[in-house]
Amino acid sequence: MKARIFVTLKGGVLDPQGRAIQHALEGLGFAGVNDVRAGKLIELDLADGTSDDDIDAMCRKLLANTVIENYRIEKVA
Amino acid sequence: MKARIFVTLKGGVLDPQGRAIQHALEGLGFAGVNDVRAGKLIELDLADGTSDDDIDAMCRKLLANTVIENYRIEKVA
Repeated sequence: MKARIFVTLKGGVLDPQGRAIQHALEGLGFAGVNDVRAGKLIELDLADGTSDDDIDAMCRKLLANTVIENYRIEKVA
Repeated sequence: MKARIFVTLKGGVLDPQGRAIQHALEGLGFAGVNDVRAGKLIELDLADGTSDDDIDAMCRKLLANTVIENYRIEKVA
């Protein structure tokens, strides 16, 4: 079973990496880039039968810093 | 207009970050984690009317290293 975890910074948190990407895109001549936010995508290959609770616990304990980050779990067949 | 860019390592490319996450999950007592791949998620807030070709060019020129990475573009309303 595969699962994808999307980790994104919460709204008010400064994102220097995103800001750097935005400036770099402008430097390359791309106009109209209003905002960039950088996040993480973690793909897990899990044993069949891993519970949703376990995946959620992985996110809370290791994959996301819930003080400043949100996470979303997407299970793939 | 918003777009999400998912950047993942190509199949044969070693992923030390993913490997470290896998070992950390095992160390926390999670069994059955067969493989972990770490990637990037980049959220772009773009001016309306930015063309698909422009977004693709951003990926090829800056956001993804196409030698070792794949990218997928998802446009959000």
